Amino acid sequence: MQAKSPKESFTTSTHIVLPNDTNVLGNLMGGRLLHWMDITAAIAANRHCRRVVVTASVNHVSFNRPIALGDTVTVEARISRAFTTSMEVYMEVFVEGKTTGEKEKCNDAAYVFVAVDQVGKPIEVPPVLPETHKEKELFDSALRRKQLGLLLAGKIKPGEAPELKELFAGK
Amino acid sequence: MQAKSPKESFTTSTHIVLPNDTNVLGNLMGGRLLHWMDITAAIAANRHCRRVVVTASVNHVSFNRPIALGDTVTVEARISRAFTTSMEVYMEVFVEGKTTGEKEKCNDAAYVFVAVDQVGKPIEVPPVLPETHKEKELFDSALRRKQLGLLLAGKIKPGEAPELKELFAGK
Amino acid sequence: MQAKSPKESFTTSTHIVLPNDTNVLGNLMGGRLLHWMDITAAIAANRHCRRVVVTASVNHVSFNRPIALGDTVTVEARISRAFTTSMEVYMEVFVEGKTTGEKEKCNDAAYVFVAVDQVGKPIEVPPVLPETHKEKELFDSALRRKQLGLLLAGKIKPGEAPELKELFAGK
Amino acid sequence: MQAKSPKESFTTSTHIVLPNDTNVLGNLMGGRLLHWMDITAAIAANRHCRRVVVTASVNHVSFNRPIALGDTVTVEARISRAFTTSMEVYMEVFVEGKTTGEKEKCNDAAYVFVAVDQVGKPIEVPPVLPETHKEKELFDSALRRKQLGLLLAGKIKPGEAPELKELFAGK
Amino acid sequence: MQAKSPKESFTTSTHIVLPNDTNVLGNLMGGRLLHWMDITAAIAANRHCRRVVVTASVNHVSFNRPIALGDTVTVEARISRAFTTSMEVYMEVFVEGKTTGEKEKCNDAAYVFVAVDQVGKPIEVPPVLPETHKEKELFDSALRRKQLGLLLAGKIKPGEAPELKELFAGK
Amino acid sequence: MQAKSPKESFTTSTHIVLPNDTNVLGNLMGGRLLHWMDITAAIAANRHCRRVVVTASVNHVSFNRPIALGDTVTVEARISRAFTTSMEVYMEVFVEGKTTGEKEKCNDAAYVFVAVDQVGKPIEVPPVLPETHKEKELFDSALRRKQLGLLLAGKIKPGEAPELKELFAGK
Repeated sequence: MQAKSPKESFTTSTHIVLPNDTNVLGNLMGGRLLHWMDITAAIAANRHCRRVVVTASVNHVSFNRPIALGDTVTVEARISRAFTTSMEVYMEVFVEGKTTGEKEKCNDAAYVFVAVDQVGKPIEVPPVLPETHKEKELFDSALRRKQLGLLLAGKIKPGEAPELKELFAGK
Repeated sequence: MQAKSPKESFTTSTHIVLPNDTNVLGNLMGGRLLHWMDITAAIAANRHCRRVVVTASVNHVSFNRPIALGDTVTVEARISRAFTTSMEVYMEVFVEGKTTGEKEKCNDAAYVFVAVDQVGKPIEVPPVLPETHKEKELFDSALRRKQLGLLLAGKIKPGEAPELKELFAGK
Repeated sequence: MQAKSPKESFTTSTHIVLPNDTNVLGNLMGGRLLHWMDITAAIAANRHCRRVVVTASVNHVSFNRPIALGDTVTVEARISRAFTTSMEVYMEVFVEGKTTGEKEKCNDAAYVFVAVDQVGKPIEVPPVLPETHKEKELFDSALRRKQLGLLLAGKIKPGEAPELKELFAGK
Repeated sequence: MQAKSPKESFTTSTHIVLPNDTNVLGNLMGGRLLHWMDITAAIAANRHCRRVVVTASVNHVSFNRPIALGDTVTVEARISRAFTTSMEVYMEVFVEGKTTGEKEKCNDAAYVFVAVDQVGKPIEVPPVLPETHKEKELFDSALRRKQLGLLLAGKIKPGEAPELKELFAGK
Repeated sequence: MQAKSPKESFTTSTHIVLPNDTNVLGNLMGGRLLHWMDITAAIAANRHCRRVVVTASVNHVSFNRPIALGDTVTVEARISRAFTTSMEVYMEVFVEGKTTGEKEKCNDAAYVFVAVDQVGKPIEVPPVLPETHKEKELFDSALRRKQLGLLLAGKIKPGEAPELKELFAGK
Repeated sequence: MQAKSPKESFTTSTHIVLPNDTNVLGNLMGGRLLHWMDITAAIAANRHCRRVVVTASVNHVSFNRPIALGDTVTVEARISRAFTTSMEVYMEVFVEGKTTGEKEKCNDAAYVFVAVDQVGKPIEVPPVLPETHKEKELFDSALRRKQLGLLLAGKIKPGEAPELKELFAGK
């Protein structure tokens, strides 16, 4: 299968924070943003492999600053790395000052999607060919995120994550 | 502040998977479940501290099996551990066979919430007093999940996570 | 068919009142609560009979006190009695003080569901075996609610409701 | 206060049954219809008294026939009778054959609304002046529905419903 | 095919402006109203031809005055003219003073629908027989709106719109 | 006020067609797309002027081909021209083959927005400085669309649209 650049799966979605998206402080609820990110990530993953894709896992997402009612929120997604049948979708979330237009990054997140056939069986996806410095960095760190995620999920033991072991030993 | 048991914050929400919650395979979309979990977790966190709470982060969530249109989904949440102003909400998601009634666990997840005052400044929450074996186990592992989460988010370096270092060294 | 206890169908759903659920006074609209109750009741009815269930009727529902934006609302449902192919789902609605945690009952309601096969034809459901004092009381009063409901709907004449006749004669 | 005719509060709402409104049999869920009826009734009640109105209770609603995905549903509401601060809104629900255009009545229902001031205190509403035969019939039967409703809700005892007593005695 | 009067397709839908329908000024967003109009128009078009109908185009819609949170909005639709397989649905939008009850027209709009068979192929619809003065005026002006619409869409050149040419020449 | 290029307001939103967005043929309903376009256009208009913006009118929108359930839809918006306090937002809608990835244009549309202050009074916006050939063409044709729109809305007479008169005379 021919490798694809992260640019080919790049996807942008733009949203206005509406009243029903907010909590009692008038700020965007985390769950709504998680939902927006999931849909944007699914489109990016489909653009990479052109198959039906399903969410396999969500890695750590931090909500670093409140996003207010009426704010414009942009989610930018691209595939950072593929692992046979799965793809890490790396996302950045920006909020934009309504009067200043200043764009501030308020989140990043990595979701993992799997490509499946009609009966839901995983199928192979194209590898990712990173080109820019940032794309290469995300490609490299994707393996570490994968192992940390599996560790968090209790699916592997520390001894089964050689990259992480090295990370700790190296210090 | 007086400690509270995880039982005091225990929260259940029950949902039917409707057409708009599904992808083209007729299965529940990840983003919708993430949203349901966020609202259930917010209620549990409020029950623990009785203050306004906001989502601070989501730790690793895996989607282990498809959930079909029409399925009954139950999200069970309780506070597993508190860290001064933040609380880890541990959740289990169950799906129930419509004709058999068999309840099968299909996810677990940990979200972190912070209690805030009217201007959004973090405020202290009661500690958690685990009682059962399971509650104690979740209490203990919460610290490891916190450090793995911070590591995943790039907010700490491996050297700043002594518990994890030990975990790897111990192997 | 083997009788089932109301405990086996017990279902809880928990909700936060969001902006779009409220009227111009900032209180939960009745229609939204009726909708939440219908979904919770459908899950309880399915748990009792493990068949497809459809709403057959709603008996009297009173809205006794306003529920405010941001309040936590809990709907608790269980089958109180079965009548061959139909089931009365008895529900209680509680609202919870956000800062005090005090749980106050604000509604009760009885919905009737019917179990149906693939073409929508009614099919038999298990009888209900009440155990506690409260369950027995609800089991007994279900018949009176049924007759009052049919009378309200104009489907029976007073003379066809012997239980009610007695009720009035007895005074 | 000047009496108003039911025609002055007459309100029609028309809906198409969309996928998310349906259950696994592809039919309109009861809860969605209850919600549509509540909003239509609120508009009719506001048209009668021109004040803020809130749902006070729902009398018996029967769901007499399934309504399918894609069907056109019409809810017709008007005030049938006023009781100082409350109004009974009588509604009829029609479904329309998509290819034949035949309009079939599939429900009727009576909701009760109360007019309130800014702090939620009940305030007086205009009386209803029925004109047609049907309007007079609904006006008369409203009192009986009110007493049956209070009886169902357990708010009055049979002895406190003289109209109903007579109804049963008369047989 | 037998002609039908605009009365036969007349359709009313009534809405309350809810929080999620509003922008940061607390007024109804244009997009929500466009959506309400589309659904109301689809019902009217189906009533005219009793076939599946799809939106073909929207002619000019102006938003002449703000509509506030909590306002009652009524959309009235009827078929003004048919062109073989398409129908112009003419709509008027009214807003109603909550305390005064005064009904004020705030928009008119013309949407065009096409009747289609199961595979989406256009099929013939009945002609429209206008009866009142207003219906005749709308019938006549529909042709001009059609040509202006095609011109706006760049689908015809000025020379292909004889009616419009005359309009300008006549001045 | 300093002129801005259409690039500075360029806005992309990406959507998956979900079940509730579709009609009985399984295709995207026009009203949903009109709603998506309104929100995307509002973000673009805000990016141009950094003020609160409200929808003033919709010019002709054609729906040229059906968009199916599960399709990925992209709305691209930019300001084509400003007229003192109003802005024309020109939009193109693309649908993307799920397996081929081919992007096909299926609509274009022009919405007009007005910038307003806190009390809803129109305020001046920056002029548009078109740079590319396409931007210049859209800038020029915006005036013709404006006059056709006003003519369609019955707000001007043919004699008051000199540009259009010339258009017809010129043929």
